Formats: sequence, structure tokens, C-alpha cells
Amino acid sequence: MIKEATVISGKDTASEIRKEIAKAVKEIKDNGKKAPHLAAVLVGSDGGSETYVNYKVKDCKEVGFESTLIRKPDTISEEELLGLVQDLNHNPDIDGFIVQLPLPAHISEQKIIRAIDPAKDVDGFHPINVGNMVLGMDGFVSATPSGIIELMKRNNISTEGKHCVVLGRSNIVGTPMSILLSRNNEMGNATVTLCHSRTKDLKEICRQADILIAALGKPGFVSSDMVKEGAVVIDVGTTRVPDTSKKSGFALKGDVDYEDVSQKASAITPVPGGVGPMTRVALLLNTLKSNSLK
Amino acid sequence: MIKEATVISGKDTASEIRKEIAKAVKEIKDNGKKAPHLAAVLVGSDGGSETYVNYKVKDCKEVGFESTLIRKPDTISEEELLGLVQDLNHNPDIDGFIVQLPLPAHISEQKIIRAIDPAKDVDGFHPINVGNMVLGMDGFVSATPSGIIELMKRNNISTEGKHCVVLGRSNIVGTPMSILLSRNNEMGNATVTLCHSRTKDLKEICRQADILIAALGKPGFVSSDMVKEGAVVIDVGTTRVPDTSKKSGFALKGDVDYEDVSQKASAITPVPGGVGPMTRVALLLNTLKSNSLK
Repeated sequence: MIKEATVISGKDTASEIRKEIAKAVKEIKDNGKKAPHLAAVLVGSDGGSETYVNYKVKDCKEVGFESTLIRKPDTISEEELLGLVQDLNHNPDIDGFIVQLPLPAHISEQKIIRAIDPAKDVDGFHPINVGNMVLGMDGFVSATPSGIIELMKRNNISTEGKHCVVLGRSNIVGTPMSILLSRNNEMGNATVTLCHSRTKDLKEICRQADILIAALGKPGFVSSDMVKEGAVVIDVGTTRVPDTSKKSGFALKGDVDYEDVSQKASAITPVPGGVGPMTRVALLLNTLKSNSLK
Repeated sequence: MIKEATVISGKDTASEIRKEIAKAVKEIKDNGKKAPHLAAVLVGSDGGSETYVNYKVKDCKEVGFESTLIRKPDTISEEELLGLVQDLNHNPDIDGFIVQLPLPAHISEQKIIRAIDPAKDVDGFHPINVGNMVLGMDGFVSATPSGIIELMKRNNISTEGKHCVVLGRSNIVGTPMSILLSRNNEMGNATVTLCHSRTKDLKEICRQADILIAALGKPGFVSSDMVKEGAVVIDVGTTRVPDTSKKSGFALKGDVDYEDVSQKASAITPVPGGVGPMTRVALLLNTLKSNSLK
């Protein structure tokens, strides 16, 4: 008999957290204070970005947050967008805001990110928030890595003394993930190896992992021969692949060959329904935190 | 015949860099511009801190920098020290300054570090500089990790595709070292494993290292059975151990058992004369950079 891995449902965990947030929002309102308010800036009309932003607005509604969606054409100048960021920085009604990436090529993403007040930077992309994370200081941690930490915590996956192998060194997932897991705290204290496109002996390194976190954006890349028996596997990949059986015309595919790997792992996150919902709820948690700090 | 490791002399490399800096300073002055100016704030009279700060002043003199040493009693209040930091931030004569750590217990080091203008933070301790390093943006990188990178570069030790194991996760050495080595650039692109006090199977992990960087502060901790044949070993440790044969009453001891490990490594840094001089010269490089950005 093949022992199937436990499915770590980000969907269920996120749903549980949203209920807790809704309860906290009710208490805030009952105390006569204003509900958390998230603003999202969407430039242009990229399909993926549209979807993500709509989810964010929908999530806000569900937990009782205020939300504001600001749409701008992709002809907006960098200067105008910087002006909008300043307006949001100074608007006392807004607890946190995000500028949905990617931005059109004529706008410097780094310039926009740096213009955001770090105290409202609920995406955690501002260098000062990145630095605070490295130094173990308070601040906003970007949604995907903080969502994964929360997912492991609530599903009793301990990281202490474990060897965690992170695949992919992106600024918003792999790199912060590797840093968080190595910090000296409850959901850290892991020995972390960060792998990427230049890594040699990748399979061998992956096979050492007690916890394997795949954030490469390469559908089905991780196969069972890269996984140690009994490892925990976290799949961050969400690549859209064409699928005519879906109404949308595409399916979301993770970095892990789920069918194959789930025969060997002790626990695994599915795609969809794994890390994705946790990323969404982590943004809500950051916004709630920003509201509570006021 | 036992093949001895190549000694990577930080002393020689730093001396070479100081000559280059002195030449650059001469050019700056010849162009009628002001020489780089480093200020150091020393609070109290800790023996180690005295020594470090004196070295910094001496190094400045050697390369033609201006330097200012500001001594304050350890009774100085946090507020007064913050005031001093503001003065230095606003003083156009000063290109960069450092507040020597540790500070007395009644002063928050983080508060002081955060008060320093990031553009003058030549120690690279401000969170925004730490974040910039993570994001691969321009800024100041703290002296020990940037000194090690420079040491490897100038001694033709390539990091690309290598497995680097870093021992120790301190904010000023191990953690930034691990981040720098994994970035997508010439002296990065390594697969990095960051180990610390909670790491299990430490020996086994160390034996995988093509480049082993020890920054634990545990004299003689790394023995030859932790080192792969032909590995490069960088010893960051500089613990003062009592030694009656020395005028000072102590000797500097690295984290690596040099006699033992040098029989197995292909290259190794000595203590003293390895990473120490590179740390010192890296601070000069940061100050020169700050001056040139003006």
C-alpha cells in the first residue's frame, strides 16, 4: 500500500484566519474605531494583475475591511504615479496600500516601491522592511513568505533544527523565505540552503531537505527523485498553463509534480489551494497589523 | 609529503587596496575636491572598541582621509547621542561615520543605527542598507562581508556554482555573507547553506562546502574532519584569548584550527592577517564611495 502524503490545505487554513480577522474587525468597529482600509493601485490591464487585485478587494469585503481600488491607464507617467503614492501615504484613511506589479516598462518599480511610506507598505517590498526582516525587527514581511510561515505554524510543521532547502532566489519569495527560516525564533532556527539556476548537484541537495520549498515558476519541476522520504513539500509555483477544459482557458500548475511527489512526501501543499490562499490572507494580516499600530 | 594550503593573505590584499585608495585620494585632492572624511564615535572605554577605533583613525591617516574621533563618556544619554548623530548627519564635511558598538545598556543600539543617515552609514548597519543589499540595489554593505568578497575576488576565488557553507548567522557577518554569496552577480551565484547553533549534522554539511566561512566566535571550532579536501576556508573569528607571551596579554584566535585544517584545505585565511585587515580596508572603501557619490 502506498502511503499518501497529508495534504496541507492553505485554503482551509486561510479560511480559518479570515474568520479570526473578521472577528477582530468586528471588535475594532464595536470599539468605535475605523475598520482597516487597504488600497490597491492597478496600472494598465494585465490579466494576471486584474485577477490578483480583484481577489484582494473581494478578500477585504469578506473580512469587513474597507478597500479602495484605483485604476490608472498604462500611459500614466512615473511622476503621476509617484504623486498618487504620496497622496496615499498622506491619506489618514488608508492603513496600507499596494501598487500591483508588474508596472509598465517606462516606470521604475524600485522608485515607486521606495516612495511608499514603509508604515503603509503592506506588501513588505520597501528596502527598509526587507532590512527589518533580516535584522529580526518589526515591520512588514511580504505576503508569500509570511503566509508560508503561518501555514506551517498552524499545521504544526516545526522548522527548528530542520534542513530547509529553498528553490528560487526571487526578491519576493525565495530570498525572504530563506532568511525567515534561518532567524532565531519559533518558526525559524532551520538550517537553510538557498538554491537557484546556478546550483550544481541540485537533486542531491534537495534530497537532504526535511522541508523543501519550491519557488521557481517551472511547472512540475520537482519530481519524487528530488525528495527525501517523509519530507514536507511546499509548492509556491502558480504558473498558468493553457487548459481548454477550463472556462478561463488555463490551469494553475505548481513547481511540484504532485502525483509523483505526494507518494513520497509526508505532507504537501496542493496547487491551487495551498500557498496561494495563504498569500492572500497574509496581505490581510499585514493590513490589520498596520491598522492596529495606529 | 603533505600539501599545505595556499595562505590567503588579507594583510597583503588590504595593503594593495590601501595603495589604490591613497592614489584615488590624491586624485580627488589634485582636482581641488575635499578628501574623504570618516568620523567615529566612541562611547565609554571598552578595550576592544578603543583598539578598533584607533585602527580606523590610523587607517584613514595612511590613505590620506580626514578623520574625526569623537569620544563620549558611557554616561551619555540616548538623547544626547541621537543629537550627536543628527549633527554628523547634517555636517557636510563628514562623508561617513560610524558609532562603535557595543553601546552602554541604557542606549538602544537599533535606535542609534536607525537615526544615522543611510547615505553616511558606512558600516552598512541601517535596515535600508541591509534591504538594499538583499535586493541587489546600491548601498553600503557592512565591512566584514564586503571585505571577504573583495578578498576572494582579488585572490581569484570564484564563487559561481560553488556550495558555500556559512557558519554563524550574526547580523553583521554570517547573515549578510550568506545573502551576498547567493545574489545573481559575479561574486555571488553560489549555493549557500547558512548554519548556526541549532544546526544538526553540522560536520556533514560543512564537508559539502567548496567554500567554508566560519563566523562563530568559537576559537579553533573547525577541525579538518569538517573540511572537504581542497576546500577554501575563510576564518572570520577573532576571539581574544589570554596569552602571557604577548605584550597585550592576549592573542587573537580564529574559529578554525589552522594547523589541522591547512593540511586539507586548498586555501585558507590566517588569523591574524586574514579577514581582519580586509574588514578595516572595506570601511575605507565605503567612505571613499560615499565621498565620490557627493
